Amino acid sequence: MGLLVVGSIALDSVATPFGETADAPGGSAVFFSAAGAILHNPVQVVGVVGSDYPWDALRQLEARGVDLTGVERAPGESFRWKARYSYDLASRETLETRLGVFAAFRPRLPERFRSARYVFLGNIDPELQLGVLDQVRDPALVACDTMNYWIHSKKDLLLELLRHIDILMVNDSEARELSGDWNIYRAAQWILSRGPTMTVIKQGEHGALLVEAQSVFKVPAYPLQEVFDPTGAGDAFAGGFMGYLAKTGDRSPANLRRAMVYGAAMGSFAVEKFGIQGFEGVTLADVRARVRGFKELVHFEVEP
Amino acid sequence: MGLLVVGSIALDSVATPFGETADAPGGSAVFFSAAGAILHNPVQVVGVVGSDYPWDALRQLEARGVDLTGVERAPGESFRWKARYSYDLASRETLETRLGVFAAFRPRLPERFRSARYVFLGNIDPELQLGVLDQVRDPALVACDTMNYWIHSKKDLLLELLRHIDILMVNDSEARELSGDWNIYRAAQWILSRGPTMTVIKQGEHGALLVEAQSVFKVPAYPLQEVFDPTGAGDAFAGGFMGYLAKTGDRSPANLRRAMVYGAAMGSFAVEKFGIQGFEGVTLADVRARVRGFKELVHFEVEP
Repeated sequence: MGLLVVGSIALDSVATPFGETADAPGGSAVFFSAAGAILHNPVQVVGVVGSDYPWDALRQLEARGVDLTGVERAPGESFRWKARYSYDLASRETLETRLGVFAAFRPRLPERFRSARYVFLGNIDPELQLGVLDQVRDPALVACDTMNYWIHSKKDLLLELLRHIDILMVNDSEARELSGDWNIYRAAQWILSRGPTMTVIKQGEHGALLVEAQSVFKVPAYPLQEVFDPTGAGDAFAGGFMGYLAKTGDRSPANLRRAMVYGAAMGSFAVEKFGIQGFEGVTLADVRARVRGFKELVHFEVEP
Repeated sequence: MGLLVVGSIALDSVATPFGETADAPGGSAVFFSAAGAILHNPVQVVGVVGSDYPWDALRQLEARGVDLTGVERAPGESFRWKARYSYDLASRETLETRLGVFAAFRPRLPERFRSARYVFLGNIDPELQLGVLDQVRDPALVACDTMNYWIHSKKDLLLELLRHIDILMVNDSEARELSGDWNIYRAAQWILSRGPTMTVIKQGEHGALLVEAQSVFKVPAYPLQEVFDPTGAGDAFAGGFMGYLAKTGDRSPANLRRAMVYGAAMGSFAVEKFGIQGFEGVTLADVRARVRGFKELVHFEVEP
């Protein structure tokens, strides 16, 4: 099943208490595809980079099954993001955001990408997200991320977008801000009332929720004694979730739950090293072992 | 199996965005026993109240299986606690703490309480907690709570106490403060290195963790669209956990996991209404139904 992601391709400079990176490959499309390709490939990427982007880094993704045909090279600077995390990684401060060529990005899907069945719209302008959907012929499942900036500046377009997607995948503060409700389960139901059949709430170190009209599924975060860099965990989660669904082609309730766990597993690999380094050398067998670890983490038997 | 709790018996005045209570029965021993007695009784309570305490409120607990023989009535004012929660219940401000007769509390166990097998030492001075242990003949399982105040003011005694208990049951910030480690899994292992065989980390709206040397079990919080008052949820959790263990007399790994879920279930009843009102009319069948709800919340099958 064709798996497509549209999102940012960035150069991240991140400082954590354990070290720092400068101009490392990042952005939603990069984290999503690095994670997703371990489960299903190709992952078709639509994005833009500037003339200064270290193309070799993307070629390494290509070798792992990421299709870069949809990555446009535009004259100018690449999108750059600079941030510093607190001592406990629980919060971060964005020090600089330079959109560069991303500011004028208009996603154009190569012809063969238009038949993608599994589509992830990374966090970009909802107007562009709607424009991508217009170019996809017959998607089986569309998931979408957003952020507070769009909730405030383009709420009408975002609400329009909700009518055309299956899953809104946001973090808890975004769900609260969008719905105006601090209770996360009511916030998720509010989102469902606007169109999607599923809301996925990402809760950082506390895992993620899959909320449907009549059910809630919770996957905790994997217990890690060492966390180096939380950057990209949410997009890695999305890559694992969508990658598993594309691989299995099965949208049954039981398989959606498994997809959540695969997402959480990919999120856990993401945070163990800087940037996308956490995925290097990770095999499908490694991911499956971690999925069994999740089972062990939450399993209990109700007495007869 | 005899189940004993030593802790505070207070009068709580709590304001949440949904209303307020004045001088309502509260305190660790009250929340613990109100929850625990639904699963196992009697729950033997050791504590102190002032001459102003509304004894009728405690009599209602007695009718539900709480043994008040160990509750001392001392001349003077009862322990009073006053707090206000934020709009989203995520934080609270203590407005007033008046220890009253609690300041001079020296727990004395009635003779028949000394054969209790399951013992919960609520959050009191670690010196008193040690004194209680001296009075219990042959406990099968001792769990203990504490708070930042004792971590700072009586750390040596607290460390001494850790050598004599099976389970330290604290919230995440307390575990971090005690261990000096912000990573919650390392913090839990640090605690294990000081004596207990289990650390239970309470995480509020994110549930709780049971950490042993070689395993971690996570139970999320029950998804509630209405939460009225988080006060006492941690002690209700402890009451459910210890009550289930006392009822079953089974400390196997599988049963400890079930006990965590019974604890989380009792915590969820606690927060649905003010004070201990959430337990009124709750039957064992209600608790079991909620335990099945937890199973539904986290259950997934690993593919073959």
